[in-house]
Amino acid sequence: MKICVLPGDGIGPEIMAQALRVLEALRSDGLSFEMETAHLGGCAVDAAGVPLPEATLALAKAADAVLLGAVGGPQWDTLPREKRPERGLLGIRKELNLFANLRPAILYPELANASSLKPELVAGLDIMIVRELTGDIYFGQPRGIEERNGERVGYNTMIYSESEIRRIGKVAFEIAQKRGGKLCSVDKMNVLECTQLWRDVMIDMAADYPDVTLSHMLVDNAAMQLVKNPKQFDVVVTGNMFGDILSDEAAMLTGSIGMLPSASLDANNKGMYEPCHGSAPDIAGKGLANPLATILSVAMMLRYTFSQEAAAQRIESAVKSVLAQGYRTGDIFEAGTRKVGTVEMGDAVIAAL
Amino acid sequence: MKICVLPGDGIGPEIMAQALRVLEALRSDGLSFEMETAHLGGCAVDAAGVPLPEATLALAKAADAVLLGAVGGPQWDTLPREKRPERGLLGIRKELNLFANLRPAILYPELANASSLKPELVAGLDIMIVRELTGDIYFGQPRGIEERNGERVGYNTMIYSESEIRRIGKVAFEIAQKRGGKLCSVDKMNVLECTQLWRDVMIDMAADYPDVTLSHMLVDNAAMQLVKNPKQFDVVVTGNMFGDILSDEAAMLTGSIGMLPSASLDANNKGMYEPCHGSAPDIAGKGLANPLATILSVAMMLRYTFSQEAAAQRIESAVKSVLAQGYRTGDIFEAGTRKVGTVEMGDAVIAAL
Ligand SMILES: CC(C)[C@H](C(=O)O)[C@@H](O)C(=O)O
Ligand SMILES: CC(C)[C@H](C(=O)O)[C@@H](O)C(=O)O
Repeated sequence: MKICVLPGDGIGPEIMAQALRVLEALRSDGLSFEMETAHLGGCAVDAAGVPLPEATLALAKAADAVLLGAVGGPQWDTLPREKRPERGLLGIRKELNLFANLRPAILYPELANASSLKPELVAGLDIMIVRELTGDIYFGQPRGIEERNGERVGYNTMIYSESEIRRIGKVAFEIAQKRGGKLCSVDKMNVLECTQLWRDVMIDMAADYPDVTLSHMLVDNAAMQLVKNPKQFDVVVTGNMFGDILSDEAAMLTGSIGMLPSASLDANNKGMYEPCHGSAPDIAGKGLANPLATILSVAMMLRYTFSQEAAAQRIESAVKSVLAQGYRTGDIFEAGTRKVGTVEMGDAVIAAL
Repeated sequence: MKICVLPGDGIGPEIMAQALRVLEALRSDGLSFEMETAHLGGCAVDAAGVPLPEATLALAKAADAVLLGAVGGPQWDTLPREKRPERGLLGIRKELNLFANLRPAILYPELANASSLKPELVAGLDIMIVRELTGDIYFGQPRGIEERNGERVGYNTMIYSESEIRRIGKVAFEIAQKRGGKLCSVDKMNVLECTQLWRDVMIDMAADYPDVTLSHMLVDNAAMQLVKNPKQFDVVVTGNMFGDILSDEAAMLTGSIGMLPSASLDANNKGMYEPCHGSAPDIAGKGLANPLATILSVAMMLRYTFSQEAAAQRIESAVKSVLAQGYRTGDIFEAGTRKVGTVEMGDAVIAAL
């Protein structure tokens, strides 16, 4: 197993350090891996002048999996577009062909109070959002800002080809088969031709998955239904732009975004794994960040890229057990639990493995 | 005051009937108006073969304000694109130049339990979402589904000109001046050039409104913050597509979408007024629908188009008073309150005027 480690910016290095300790602890299980570390995002801009240096890309391409901390921070926000940290993220997704972004929104019973929603509406929440990640308006051409009829005009292109839709559809249907058998495809077919094609292709594919119940929802209604009754969803599949919005909304329903990992996969299960939360510059370097989303990203890596289901579950059980034992970083702390820092949380997970 | 009335489909005619009774009751205040009724949406397809007949458009253009019930229903969903009811809606918005969509998300104290969110997070919620309504990817060209390199491709164009952004920005800044003085502009400037221009123009405009505090939020974060802490928002301004999603999400935070009106204004305060909820075909014709959003839309019409602030407030107070008296339609009913139908709710409002 060759793993490319990209700690990134802000709290990235701290949370990654704990995730790697957990991974190291699994060597005793007979897991063997090699790791190489590189720069992505703001730290890469500082070190090499660009957010995605050639050397980082080469390392990521040569690896079987990429572990990413988080990128970004205010000091890079005023740089020209192509130098901003998120360009590194978008670039690596595209260059590695990581078209399938899996974003679970799970509410751990111990953290039910962390949600803004009434506990009965979210207790036991377990949604998997499958977001297309290398197409749509994120990458569509033409795009730009230019002068037309004496004024500036900004424009972008939302675009999907049938093969792109089928590729992500296949991932989503297969995940639905392994879960509750329900797939909800989200589009805006009543307005956008692009997503009319999306719906047509999904309907067409459904015939090949008789064990999956396919439904469709307009994106505005999906944004409402997530608030109204989130447990109606099992697997959700949608495009890059709508997926960006809905996956964050779904993540926030849990109230504990510091707990949520994500996977971005190519067609051969090579993947990049990262927490859903950002680089949290305000608490960076203070040892306060929650490392659990990154630790759970390691579990996703073991499951999806390395087919090490047992090891993945060992990590996930350890995380559940530290929650049950009452360990909490500041972001998920409540009265009656035990507040710990980043390293102590790592210690607790390793002890529970 | 010339008012064009478009009852529309589903529950549209029932709720409109109550709204018009309330308006009639205000004649005694010295308000005088003329009304003409026409078809829009599915009923227009049935009567005239198209969702926005010429006669309807002519009437709407000649009027000072348009009152709309709701459009759509399953029987028209399988029609070709250009005949679907929502085409009528999009068409009338565009033809009348109704570029400013005002969507309040207000939680009445009596209905705090209706929200999915914990009461302390939403009690007193009062957000105004200002959504651009005649531009963006809704109307952008080119668009379509076509064959490219041997497969189908669907595409749409997100586009805004500087003048379109300024026009909606002006509306939003002015509303913020009259409210809490806080304006949050939502974009996705880290990915989309179109919304980078949006942000640049908003920043530029802020200099003219020193009494308004302008902030910016990425759309994915906005979808999260609405769930996490909705009361942080005063006025939100955003484009047509993001506004579609966020305004529905915000509406659902209140748990009582049957209470929320909306206004769609042109540059001269001519407007179309309608409830935020849909045509609810499942309960149509049963006398169960909540007419309050449509009644409150009449209040918005009196305020924004006819500058009859006193009359608008009379309606709004009457609605608050019927809620305080315990009257509830099925959608907002809870134990201990008095369940009523559409007509009884209209009666109660008129009695409370
Ligand atoms: C940082 C940004 C470019 C990125 C995206 O929009 O995809 C982020 O929001 C995400 O969801 O991973
Ligand atoms: C019916 C549909 C075309 C419309 C829209 O997307 O604008 C609706 O969702 C709305 O928000 O008024």
